[in-house]
Amino acid sequence: EEPPLPTPGDPYGGDPPRHPGLKVNTLKPFNAEPPSELLAENFLTPNPLFFKRNHLPVPTVDPATYRLYVQGIRGRALSLSLQDLKSKFPKHKVTATVQCAGNRRAEMNALRNTNRLGWNIGAISTACWSGVRLRDVLVHAGYKQGDDGHVSFEGLDKDQNGTVYGASIPFEKAMDPKGDVLLAYEMNGEELPRDHGFPLRVVVPGIVGARNVKWLARISVGPEESQSHWQQKDYKGFSPAVTWDNVDFSKAPAIQEMPVQSAITEPSPNALVPPGELTVKGYAWSGGGRGVIRVDVSLDGGKSWHEAKLTGEAQSPGRAWAWKLWQLKACVPPGTKELNIVCKAVDTSYNEQPDSVGPIWNILGVLNNAWHRVHVSVGED
Amino acid sequence: EEPPLPTPGDPYGGDPPRHPGLKVNTLKPFNAEPPSELLAENFLTPNPLFFKRNHLPVPTVDPATYRLYVQGIRGRALSLSLQDLKSKFPKHKVTATVQCAGNRRAEMNALRNTNRLGWNIGAISTACWSGVRLRDVLVHAGYKQGDDGHVSFEGLDKDQNGTVYGASIPFEKAMDPKGDVLLAYEMNGEELPRDHGFPLRVVVPGIVGARNVKWLARISVGPEESQSHWQQKDYKGFSPAVTWDNVDFSKAPAIQEMPVQSAITEPSPNALVPPGELTVKGYAWSGGGRGVIRVDVSLDGGKSWHEAKLTGEAQSPGRAWAWKLWQLKACVPPGTKELNIVCKAVDTSYNEQPDSVGPIWNILGVLNNAWHRVHVSVGED
Ligand SMILES: [Mo]
Ligand SMILES: [Mo]
Repeated sequence: EEPPLPTPGDPYGGDPPRHPGLKVNTLKPFNAEPPSELLAENFLTPNPLFFKRNHLPVPTVDPATYRLYVQGIRGRALSLSLQDLKSKFPKHKVTATVQCAGNRRAEMNALRNTNRLGWNIGAISTACWSGVRLRDVLVHAGYKQGDDGHVSFEGLDKDQNGTVYGASIPFEKAMDPKGDVLLAYEMNGEELPRDHGFPLRVVVPGIVGARNVKWLARISVGPEESQSHWQQKDYKGFSPAVTWDNVDFSKAPAIQEMPVQSAITEPSPNALVPPGELTVKGYAWSGGGRGVIRVDVSLDGGKSWHEAKLTGEAQSPGRAWAWKLWQLKACVPPGTKELNIVCKAVDTSYNEQPDSVGPIWNILGVLNNAWHRVHVSVGED
Repeated sequence: EEPPLPTPGDPYGGDPPRHPGLKVNTLKPFNAEPPSELLAENFLTPNPLFFKRNHLPVPTVDPATYRLYVQGIRGRALSLSLQDLKSKFPKHKVTATVQCAGNRRAEMNALRNTNRLGWNIGAISTACWSGVRLRDVLVHAGYKQGDDGHVSFEGLDKDQNGTVYGASIPFEKAMDPKGDVLLAYEMNGEELPRDHGFPLRVVVPGIVGARNVKWLARISVGPEESQSHWQQKDYKGFSPAVTWDNVDFSKAPAIQEMPVQSAITEPSPNALVPPGELTVKGYAWSGGGRGVIRVDVSLDGGKSWHEAKLTGEAQSPGRAWAWKLWQLKACVPPGTKELNIVCKAVDTSYNEQPDSVGPIWNILGVLNNAWHRVHVSVGED
């Protein structure tokens, strides 16, 4: 199929081409995830399949004239070209998983519709990012570890009123030598793709995707969080009792670290699986650099459990930024009619996932980390 | 009632007197918790009511001859008297909650008996601790931040074979200026009581009680964790599938940070409450300095939720070592026959508690942080 011709004046007319296998949630802005069954096939998600979560049109950036503006101390300001960034600061590599706060919202929508993007389990992916340390740039701008406050980021992506995407992270995370926050210009060894923030994006390991600002234009430091819509009026967690009539956004903290998460990527929901050996596969991750220490899998809806085998790259304690992939080989006895497959992960703080979606449902449909459940039938094809 | 006379040769004959209101789990060693309904009456738990978790007899220590041995770098060793500790290092205060890994084990035992101490919800308490920073002592002994490894502690409490209590924490936690690890000689402004480690104990904020070694005798630093039974063969979390026949203690990490927790202290289980206004009270806490941001309370077993009001001292981000107390005033409509009260807390990483005990049950009966449930009847007395 040919892509439709761009409509004249369409702000999304300049968006890049995308992999046709992606499951599209919205075209404009472009929001799409890889097919679930491909998600855990690679520890590093291939760039074309990496989930894409855009809030606005993809800006067209000329790398030759691109400048990053950094507010320095005492009113000074830095303007850094890509060449400045690549030559003045050491290059660092960090393998980190990025997860959208809305990952697995479809399960919340099925319960009570939030009228927001119905992400399945694929709003999460992993890459090896290369770039400069945010810490190094901030030190160059005169900042010292130990200060309070927040580091705010603005993107080059803007709506028709000129409002740009923005978000912030705690200054302490930005300056922590073990925080590994990058300004990345490469993704899995390639130039950063346009959908992922070309020519420069923030990668904040262990922190919700929304703070990993793409097409980075400006960095500032101050006592307050970003005043953007996305920091103040979105990406916060509420009790299931909170409605749009009584919500008070000032009462909930902006999501930064995310809770422990896992999902089943194989078999697919409602698949027909043969009796005999069954392979169950999936991913597991936790926020804040907390590593996944165990994944429990049940075939009977949570009554009995098996331990999955974990794979993944070795990571330092407290800096487990990347997911683990996992696998369980189980024997399905002949005569079994159906399986209710469930997974739950445990992280280094021994946090576990809640059993069910209802009690964590919220009006924004964020932070769904309930046990993931896949029902399959057993039989010969 | 008079306490029984000590049996000659009883290793527990030297144990101190205790508050008669404590709920005793075992007398020898002494393990006891405050009555649940008193637990959340004070932000700082009064010392006599603070839960007591002893693994061995309480040693009798002469403060005049007491010495703390600290293994320094390059084979050097320090021997510090109490006077040395109090005069050579600045005095610091930290308000921190201590929770036993076995808190709420009774609910696990009710499901499948672990044959271990049946703690109710009271193996958790909060105090303002004063003493010297472990970091300052380690720096004095020649250590520098940035090294790897573990800091091991040994107590003066020993069994009849001379085996002493021991545990360790990561070196990084010990040296972190924001880790607030203390060698405490005061508890809530009083001299450290004998049951709590007189004359000196470790307080490791955000970390399981078992690492807060009492009657501290010796500190050493090395590449390995403590080789003690309690570090290697206890205080670890396993899947519900693991049995005593197949357990491999090397496969699970020693518990350090604990998961988000909460419990209902009022009303009591099976109480009769009048219709009309009902007050529900409790505590909530999370490990690793993650603050509690919300407590959800349900009166219908988890179908609908209300937000409780939180109280507690202000704490710095990432250093929320103390619990929050919480309260909900609800209206019980006339005609209501019973209530299934449930609470669950949410921490700054938006981790939530799992719904049910079964899927987190484990042979050691540790880490029970399932929703706490209290069933009450409604009616006039
Ligand atoms: Mo997101
Ligand atoms: Mo404990």
